[in-house]
Amino acid sequence: MRILVVGSGGVGAAVASIARHRSFFQTLVLGDLDADRARAAAARTGDDRISGVACDASDADAIVAVIEEHRATHVLNACDPRLNPPIFAAARRAGVTYLDMAMTLSERHPEEPYARTGVMLGDAQFAEHDAWEADGQLALVGIGVEPGASDVFARHAADTMFSAIDEIGVRDGADLEVAGYAFAPTFSIWTTIEECLNPPLIWEKERGFYVTEPFSEPEVFEFPEGIGPVECVNVEHEEVVLIPRWVDCNRVTFKYGLGEEFIGVLRTLNLLGLDGTTPIDVRGQLVSPRDVVAAALPDPATLGDKMTGRTCAGTIVTGTGKDGQPRATYLYHVVDNERTMREDGCQAVVWQTAINPVVALELLAEGVWSGAGVLGPEAFEAQPFLDLLADYGSPHGVDERDPADPLRRR
Amino acid sequence: MRILVVGSGGVGAAVASIARHRSFFQTLVLGDLDADRARAAAARTGDDRISGVACDASDADAIVAVIEEHRATHVLNACDPRLNPPIFAAARRAGVTYLDMAMTLSERHPEEPYARTGVMLGDAQFAEHDAWEADGQLALVGIGVEPGASDVFARHAADTMFSAIDEIGVRDGADLEVAGYAFAPTFSIWTTIEECLNPPLIWEKERGFYVTEPFSEPEVFEFPEGIGPVECVNVEHEEVVLIPRWVDCNRVTFKYGLGEEFIGVLRTLNLLGLDGTTPIDVRGQLVSPRDVVAAALPDPATLGDKMTGRTCAGTIVTGTGKDGQPRATYLYHVVDNERTMREDGCQAVVWQTAINPVVALELLAEGVWSGAGVLGPEAFEAQPFLDLLADYGSPHGVDERDPADPLRRR
Repeated sequence: MRILVVGSGGVGAAVASIARHRSFFQTLVLGDLDADRARAAAARTGDDRISGVACDASDADAIVAVIEEHRATHVLNACDPRLNPPIFAAARRAGVTYLDMAMTLSERHPEEPYARTGVMLGDAQFAEHDAWEADGQLALVGIGVEPGASDVFARHAADTMFSAIDEIGVRDGADLEVAGYAFAPTFSIWTTIEECLNPPLIWEKERGFYVTEPFSEPEVFEFPEGIGPVECVNVEHEEVVLIPRWVDCNRVTFKYGLGEEFIGVLRTLNLLGLDGTTPIDVRGQLVSPRDVVAAALPDPATLGDKMTGRTCAGTIVTGTGKDGQPRATYLYHVVDNERTMREDGCQAVVWQTAINPVVALELLAEGVWSGAGVLGPEAFEAQPFLDLLADYGSPHGVDERDPADPLRRR
Repeated sequence: MRILVVGSGGVGAAVASIARHRSFFQTLVLGDLDADRARAAAARTGDDRISGVACDASDADAIVAVIEEHRATHVLNACDPRLNPPIFAAARRAGVTYLDMAMTLSERHPEEPYARTGVMLGDAQFAEHDAWEADGQLALVGIGVEPGASDVFARHAADTMFSAIDEIGVRDGADLEVAGYAFAPTFSIWTTIEECLNPPLIWEKERGFYVTEPFSEPEVFEFPEGIGPVECVNVEHEEVVLIPRWVDCNRVTFKYGLGEEFIGVLRTLNLLGLDGTTPIDVRGQLVSPRDVVAAALPDPATLGDKMTGRTCAGTIVTGTGKDGQPRATYLYHVVDNERTMREDGCQAVVWQTAINPVVALELLAEGVWSGAGVLGPEAFEAQPFLDLLADYGSPHGVDERDPADPLRRR
């Protein structure tokens, strides 16, 4: 397997750091608009299978050229999802396997933006499914941690734990703190704004897909391993699109443990129009307000040595167990920043995102996972993924809950 | 009198609109980096004494050239206070009278920014006082509404109402609403951020000048003419520097009726570093975050036809009346947006700022006010100013209050 990772920011660099421990690939090339950044990230791994090159992720021709030059067999997109179209198109044209960790962006319904869906997350990619499938070519989309591990958990619950599923709810929470900053998001603010200010998507078997106002249906969800209760609200996320395609259930939601301060910040950015991506004229220069917000904040990938705490991604599944009794199970993955910094020099949130596509690539390399078309993680057997995750030293957890009170730990 | 107004934004254009009703001047030239904007503002007055020209307010040489070309005798600075240094210097070199509505900017104390003063508002201008005075040249600084009318009120109270003054507190509040916008400041957000996030300045006779944390000492002050109670907090403002130089009292404060939402917005901008003026790198372009905030919001000068309500500027004076009894008097000026739009095509806040320098220019033209050096409004007789303000159809008001409860109306 010869891998091209497009983007050598926090997640791309973490992919390289994690992959260096494994033998399943021959070469891994980090491509970035900033070739020096890519080369530096590659050099930090000390693994001579890993190199860095210039690659303009906005230019499909340029990506095809890098794929061909390095004879890549698999392209992993580690850029923000604005760049999915050229990277996805380049992989298609080059005839290689494509993986990403977030799907093409949504567009609101023009008349009823907080009630009906417009263009949905991933619509542009799923539209190509038949063509990819016909050619036996695989696009494994949404294979980070969320979407990604969260979808694997949903499939695993359906296969091995439940005879009938009512709701599948992805829940994300953390107790991470960043010393020395009044406000420092631990993940890309660009993506966080996109997720949190877009109308949150919900799927129900009877009703289909619908959207709500941002930050709807707040709930306090208790996370395991000492993180404790965190206020979570609905946000737009790929799992709500992906899970119903492959897993039988009545309802799918995604709630993010943002906390009160972060919600206030996002509301203010929206109020002032600073969440926008359309360039505005600032004293003669055209700039996107959201890019300015991102530039004004510290780069989350650089904060690892100032962070403490853990981050938890997981999926709460409610329904009827294999024994016919009501069941509520939270399947989760917790990562401690202290460990990821020590072992791989990456902060916890980017590391937790990055480990999953590496595991998936290894399953593809070994032929354990295979397929054709545009497929989500839940289209594949879950057990081999979970076993390999444990083999990487980062097993998932299972938290059985009281079906009458699934938000709390027993 | 031949006037050059530097800056044809909201306030500069309003100066022209107000001045067109008066006969005291021969010519009024609006100068702006954007000459088309200046010419359009001049044309809207329909007064052939008023014209628009190109003038780069950041370039003292260019301003001197415009002064000389148009044989200006008086320069009114209607730009944001970042541009005070070149405009002030140009007026000095050209030997003409200078007026402005805000003073040179402060800089925090490097070690104790929320306790001790660093460079204060206007320090850079007052440093030139002796030179201007020696040459018999006048700089009348801070002659908008606040500072400006508020300082005239302080002098008037001292001259005619009080035998001894305890505290002079400027209080600003409004009930303005802008239809169709979730958030739309009615005054320059650049200046509002500067005022509100800088450490608020307080003067006390015993203690001298000192500063506090932003938004300190909240109080609910009841404004007259139906505006009602508004939450006010300390902000940095020129009156605190100006009033003690000429008016005997024990304490001077400035509190702004920002309201809870606006305070939240300003706190968030500060938290995210979006209040900063130092350019940051945004995908290869250098931009000032505060300029981006201003560009993302609607231009306050364009909102007049969507605004309703009134704005009130005034000065609450407490102490001993001429009769030896305790006295508390709020001297104020209220402007209704409906009227300023109808009569002069300007929204209330910029109109209320702009009328005061026009009144002052008329007093200077008639020789009623004269002086040399760098002087604030309270260095001049207040009564002629108040009489002329009434003659413009916009008289001030006097609200006698219970000295035991000066925050409320009787």
